[in-house]
Amino acid sequence: MSKPSIPQGTRDFSPLVVQRRQYILNTLKNIFEIYGFQPIETPAMENLSTLTGKYGEEGDRLIFKILNNGLHEQTDERKILRFKEWEKMQNQAYSSTEITERALRYDLTIPFARYVVMNQNDIALPFRRYQMQPVWRADRPQKGRYREFWQCDADVVGSNSLINEAELFCIYQSAFEAFKVPVNIKINSRKILAGLADLCGIPNQLTDLTIALDKLDKIGWDGVMAELTTRNIPTEHFYIIADIINNTKNITDNTKIILVLKDFFKSSSIGSAGVQELETALNYYSQLANNKKITNNITIDVTLARGLNYYTGIIVEVVCTHPQVKMGSIGGGGRYDDLTGLFGLKGISGVGVSFGIDRIYDVIEELQLFPTHVETGTQALILNFGGENETYSLQILQQLRNAKIRAEIYPEASKFDKQMKYANKRGITYILLPGDEERKNNKVSLKNFVTSTQELVTIEECIAAITL
Amino acid sequence: MSKPSIPQGTRDFSPLVVQRRQYILNTLKNIFEIYGFQPIETPAMENLSTLTGKYGEEGDRLIFKILNNGLHEQTDERKILRFKEWEKMQNQAYSSTEITERALRYDLTIPFARYVVMNQNDIALPFRRYQMQPVWRADRPQKGRYREFWQCDADVVGSNSLINEAELFCIYQSAFEAFKVPVNIKINSRKILAGLADLCGIPNQLTDLTIALDKLDKIGWDGVMAELTTRNIPTEHFYIIADIINNTKNITDNTKIILVLKDFFKSSSIGSAGVQELETALNYYSQLANNKKITNNITIDVTLARGLNYYTGIIVEVVCTHPQVKMGSIGGGGRYDDLTGLFGLKGISGVGVSFGIDRIYDVIEELQLFPTHVETGTQALILNFGGENETYSLQILQQLRNAKIRAEIYPEASKFDKQMKYANKRGITYILLPGDEERKNNKVSLKNFVTSTQELVTIEECIAAITL
Repeated sequence: MSKPSIPQGTRDFSPLVVQRRQYILNTLKNIFEIYGFQPIETPAMENLSTLTGKYGEEGDRLIFKILNNGLHEQTDERKILRFKEWEKMQNQAYSSTEITERALRYDLTIPFARYVVMNQNDIALPFRRYQMQPVWRADRPQKGRYREFWQCDADVVGSNSLINEAELFCIYQSAFEAFKVPVNIKINSRKILAGLADLCGIPNQLTDLTIALDKLDKIGWDGVMAELTTRNIPTEHFYIIADIINNTKNITDNTKIILVLKDFFKSSSIGSAGVQELETALNYYSQLANNKKITNNITIDVTLARGLNYYTGIIVEVVCTHPQVKMGSIGGGGRYDDLTGLFGLKGISGVGVSFGIDRIYDVIEELQLFPTHVETGTQALILNFGGENETYSLQILQQLRNAKIRAEIYPEASKFDKQMKYANKRGITYILLPGDEERKNNKVSLKNFVTSTQELVTIEECIAAITL
Repeated sequence: MSKPSIPQGTRDFSPLVVQRRQYILNTLKNIFEIYGFQPIETPAMENLSTLTGKYGEEGDRLIFKILNNGLHEQTDERKILRFKEWEKMQNQAYSSTEITERALRYDLTIPFARYVVMNQNDIALPFRRYQMQPVWRADRPQKGRYREFWQCDADVVGSNSLINEAELFCIYQSAFEAFKVPVNIKINSRKILAGLADLCGIPNQLTDLTIALDKLDKIGWDGVMAELTTRNIPTEHFYIIADIINNTKNITDNTKIILVLKDFFKSSSIGSAGVQELETALNYYSQLANNKKITNNITIDVTLARGLNYYTGIIVEVVCTHPQVKMGSIGGGGRYDDLTGLFGLKGISGVGVSFGIDRIYDVIEELQLFPTHVETGTQALILNFGGENETYSLQILQQLRNAKIRAEIYPEASKFDKQMKYANKRGITYILLPGDEERKNNKVSLKNFVTSTQELVTIEECIAAITL
């Protein structure tokens, strides 16, 4: 028999990891709900037709497709048809419904759009939903990139108000404050990038400009210029782009950046609209934040681009600012127009943010910020001395549990050393030793593994000591 | 554009359903942890080789298989090989690794066994784990049967002690007590069924006997006799089977049933062993339950068989006893030997129970037993009157949230009626109206949708009223 394994890019989560992930998800869940967001869940399997064509050509290739069942239970005619379809699939990036009709969820955004369209009569707009579920991508696995990973999104659809943007900034602020992770919330607007393309006289090359600028952090200004050149953006415009970057990059006061941008974009109506939106959203944010100490920065970054093409307004990205952490963005989002239009429901604008659960986990772990109370392992183990002592132990056990203590009994009357070894490997703090003497006196010896102390106590005292 | 849909047998969960499901899962999670069980999670995708051959021929056909990616990016040679494999898959129930190497999790038991084998060096035995995750089966969808559904299992591996069985009975007892769902916990032992086959002189037909008896509830004794006949069990033995059923069926006291069974199986060593195990497990159970009022029955049912062949000892099944509920079992489990032997780790016995989340949901809903506090929707909506009142509202909003009130503001200064319609559709109880007068006096009008009252209050009074 070969040794069992799991597919590349997937993970088993052991108890401590599950508990810590639950802490992250529960913290976010509570914040989302305080902000009036409601949970939905969609199936892991979607119709393939729902997903294809939504993530670009590269995305289509990375969708995990599910083989139709009952392939061998068909007529010869059907088999011949299927062979032809199969042949096509071998020679091009094509998926035949004869072979596959279902696929695994690739993100949470498209299923959300589908959900809104299918449930439009039951939903009250604006609809504020959050969703925390795994997604699957046939990407090449590498450090920090998995084929199965969790996404966590909060979106508002059906409202153009920039209050929504401000609320989402607050959610980022509240979440990372709760995690005690210092972050910078970077914001920009796609309209500012469009304004920049405008000023350069290349409005049709907005996407090229966006893709190049998006890489500034990674490849530097020289790299961006090379990329712009490759993308046929005339060199004569580079100084305009350099100008806006240099004129804003060292200003920490958003009010001052707004003033610079207002002046810079005065001849571009879309650029001016973008600046206005940022100003309004930031105003809303500071009104909301008025009663709460803000521990994280929110800063305008005109080079922030965000890869996804469906963004149309304000965009946002969160990076950890702790010097010990080397990590890309741990969250991001923005406004998109007409996402549900993909499924036939036009004219609904939305804005949303996403939390990178796996990366946030890594950051919290690296900074050793997981609270110990998230570890919900066994607190107390009763050793099993067999016979009447076992009976006595079972009665104590249930009293501990009634007092909400996470407790267990070693199920066999094994040797003392074996039982202690188990307690040690499990990292259980309290060990109860109910021997003959203890039983006769209705007491128990309570050993504390951490302080290495042991005392003879009543059951009530024992419960009090553990729940202290 | 065609109307979007989701695959047959899958479901979207809307906010209320998610919240109620979370209530079920959290209740179980807390109980499992009080009993010393630890959570693990395994990937949705397993290697197909991990799953095939574990669920019988029928099961193999119902596994959802994932198409290998990058089919069109290969050499001609590879394509020809793949065509041959594809042809085989068209003509028989066969899966080629050229076409599919991964599949969706079919249950939680096999992935758990795989996990134990892969992590045997890190796990302290006995290992008590719980797992709550979705599974997928290509079954024909029907009422109450889905292609994606959640399983929830608790197992102990690495211990033969019958204390484990007793603890799992307690978990069932605690869980359904928490849900306020009245149940009967039916128990039996595979060894008693083996003893019965023994007494009938048909030890090799144990599986046939088990399958037939398993249907007693559905098809009655006449049906069982027909089934036994079909399965070539000689008619002359039927009276023995009828005897044991009739001699135990109207006894409610387990001690008395044990006495009857001891006598009945005195000439079968395996049957006697089964009776002894039931007696011991029930003794442990009553010792554990000593300090807690038992609201649910636990009864020996010699006809209980449980379909799965891997059970070897005590088996258990939970049925709802409320007259209003027509539903099969809502939980079940038992002891199995050597499950990890499938993956090369021999000699580890285990015992586990499963909770049928979807059915439990339906029962709780039918009996209207979902507590209202599980609904974590928005408690308070601030109406948006625009301008300075909007600014004032944003400040109030964050004060509500700081006081842990789930609150939102209507994001646009729309017409009063539209905003109220939204509040109504969302089922929000408290509406805050911050008009000019209110703002000038640092107050707010608080409307209660349930009592249809409205009063002018300070923000502190408002918070107090909502959090009451």
